[in-house]
Amino acid sequence: MQNFEFHNPTRILFGKGTTERVGEVCAALGKRVLFVYGGGSIKKNGLYDRVLQSLKKENLEVIELSGIKPNPTLDKVREGVALCQQHQIEVVLAVGGGSVLDSAKIIAAGARYDGDPWDFFSGKAEVPGRIHLVTVLTLAATGSEMNHNAVITNEETKEKLGLSHPHLFPDVSILDPENTFTVPREHTVYGIVDMMAHVFEQYFHKTPETPLQDRLSEGIMKTIIEYTPKVLANPTDYDARATIMWCGTLALNHLIEAGVEGDWSSHDIEHELSAFYDIPHGAGLAIVFPQWMTYVLDEIPGKFAQFAERVWEIPRNGRSDRELGKAGIERTREWFREIGAPVTLREVGIDERYFELMADKATKRGSLGSVKKLTKEDVLAILKMCL
Amino acid sequence: MQNFEFHNPTRILFGKGTTERVGEVCAALGKRVLFVYGGGSIKKNGLYDRVLQSLKKENLEVIELSGIKPNPTLDKVREGVALCQQHQIEVVLAVGGGSVLDSAKIIAAGARYDGDPWDFFSGKAEVPGRIHLVTVLTLAATGSEMNHNAVITNEETKEKLGLSHPHLFPDVSILDPENTFTVPREHTVYGIVDMMAHVFEQYFHKTPETPLQDRLSEGIMKTIIEYTPKVLANPTDYDARATIMWCGTLALNHLIEAGVEGDWSSHDIEHELSAFYDIPHGAGLAIVFPQWMTYVLDEIPGKFAQFAERVWEIPRNGRSDRELGKAGIERTREWFREIGAPVTLREVGIDERYFELMADKATKRGSLGSVKKLTKEDVLAILKMCL
Repeated sequence: MQNFEFHNPTRILFGKGTTERVGEVCAALGKRVLFVYGGGSIKKNGLYDRVLQSLKKENLEVIELSGIKPNPTLDKVREGVALCQQHQIEVVLAVGGGSVLDSAKIIAAGARYDGDPWDFFSGKAEVPGRIHLVTVLTLAATGSEMNHNAVITNEETKEKLGLSHPHLFPDVSILDPENTFTVPREHTVYGIVDMMAHVFEQYFHKTPETPLQDRLSEGIMKTIIEYTPKVLANPTDYDARATIMWCGTLALNHLIEAGVEGDWSSHDIEHELSAFYDIPHGAGLAIVFPQWMTYVLDEIPGKFAQFAERVWEIPRNGRSDRELGKAGIERTREWFREIGAPVTLREVGIDERYFELMADKATKRGSLGSVKKLTKEDVLAILKMCL
Repeated sequence: MQNFEFHNPTRILFGKGTTERVGEVCAALGKRVLFVYGGGSIKKNGLYDRVLQSLKKENLEVIELSGIKPNPTLDKVREGVALCQQHQIEVVLAVGGGSVLDSAKIIAAGARYDGDPWDFFSGKAEVPGRIHLVTVLTLAATGSEMNHNAVITNEETKEKLGLSHPHLFPDVSILDPENTFTVPREHTVYGIVDMMAHVFEQYFHKTPETPLQDRLSEGIMKTIIEYTPKVLANPTDYDARATIMWCGTLALNHLIEAGVEGDWSSHDIEHELSAFYDIPHGAGLAIVFPQWMTYVLDEIPGKFAQFAERVWEIPRNGRSDRELGKAGIERTREWFREIGAPVTLREVGIDERYFELMADKATKRGSLGSVKKLTKEDVLAILKMCL
């Protein structure tokens, strides 16, 4: 096990009816709220009205910023920062999925910074702090509700970059599983792929002696696998939605990475895909991950064998670690297909046209990953395997 | 799954060499430190000197309070509070196991209260806040390093009572597995029994649909079972000590209880035993727990069967839930005996002399537990089964 520091100060309010507490939660932090959301879905399902009502009940001054898109863009972040400064906003309230939450994080940080918020991503400036940040989650996926990460796309430079900083933990996140009842099947699936990918990234590593971290990760994966069919069969099954939601949070709240050196190269490769093509992040991950696994299998065959046995319950039947691990990878790909995710680039209309450019950009700050350090050539090879 | 609120603001510094950061950590919080510890063990193994040196390097003013005993007592807490007030202490630093940490929590809270700190336990007053609190853990057991619980014994009234309050989370806890290398075998075992008991208490419950919580608990239990023989065979096996230490923390840091209604009656019954006889808490738990399990088996036979299958890997072989569950309970008792814990009261020299009185005191605020609500007669029956 490696040394680690763990500190996660986000307060979670989880369960039925917690949405109605958003006004009270914001009011405890400030008077002027920037209400950030995405497209029209929260207006259609009534959540917009419920949130606004709860805020109004506390007599809060509410400014709105709507139109945050999946693969959220820098321009909306800049717009949000300007609104914060103009209206002396004290609390940024994000109501949505990971894109809205990530945007809100950078808006809240940008409100405390004089320059351009892209400086945080380019490395020109460190996050100086932030104004208050509250979230109401509507999609189980990224874990943004309880972590210090954010991913933003700069459309001018075609860069999709991630940022991690202790100031980016939300103060409070409201996780009301009923807010995910109306998530369309496709997005439910992409969210589930995303959380599985997060566990993979912290589970497949070379750090020796991490038995507890392994067991926790395996527990999350087994639960996701067991509950995905339930949630797809009945989107308003409260316990299934609640279970998947809590899985998504724990998959990326820094708990299972404590003591291990993860490998995020699949996410990095996918970010290039969705920066170039604007495909859903989860779709890209379902395509890339099994190919990355296959590519690095020989680095940690024992871990892949453990994955096959413990998570997929594939009996060894005299097979070597490598063979058993391979069966586990194949089962993973098959499962992605079963639940409705694409597993080839062709399915989402992507050909090799930009592979060179993507591989170049993905590795321009150095090689990717830790299980196997991936050079530009490795990334190119993996992308070709994805066709 | 039940609604829940989760908030754990403690910062964990985990790993080799983290002890040397205690001075820097305290200095960031204040200038005057009350250094709280137990008997002479930290003087013998050199930890006392290392901590003091680190504090002195930062030019901190250090007042000492030593002599905290297992099953820590109110009189030492009062002494600590008086020292805080007399020396205008800003940081309470606990170096020790759960007893030292629990005492330090109440001292830090008592320093912000005008009356007697027992008022927090008797319900006469709420914890008003606390001064800063830093811990250096030397025994993997109670989880006090990352939770908001404390247990104190009032010798005058022969009451051993627990308290939970959001103000009782440490600011920072330093978990250096090397500090547990010299823990005697017996106390290593009692610590392990204590953490297993904590998981049991949050795992055996009647809350429906808690699949993720179950898997996480099972993961902690399986890891403890796998690593206990390693730690007993080689007390200076770093990875084994590190694993057991992190298991103890996660067993009681509010994570696995999120969404479930646990059952703490075994702990309550044991507290009566150790309040009357001053036996190690872990010893009492190893005796009480399997009997409590047997007593409540028929309330949740399916959960006990799941425990037998998943944690102990006992094959079903056509058995009913009840029979399989019973086999799991028997295996648990056998395992306690294997690792060197007592499993009968006779082994620790306790007879039925005070059973009536204990059962009476344990239930004087109402029935115990939630799996089966235990009356005085139930507690008496369980105590008799423990003989």
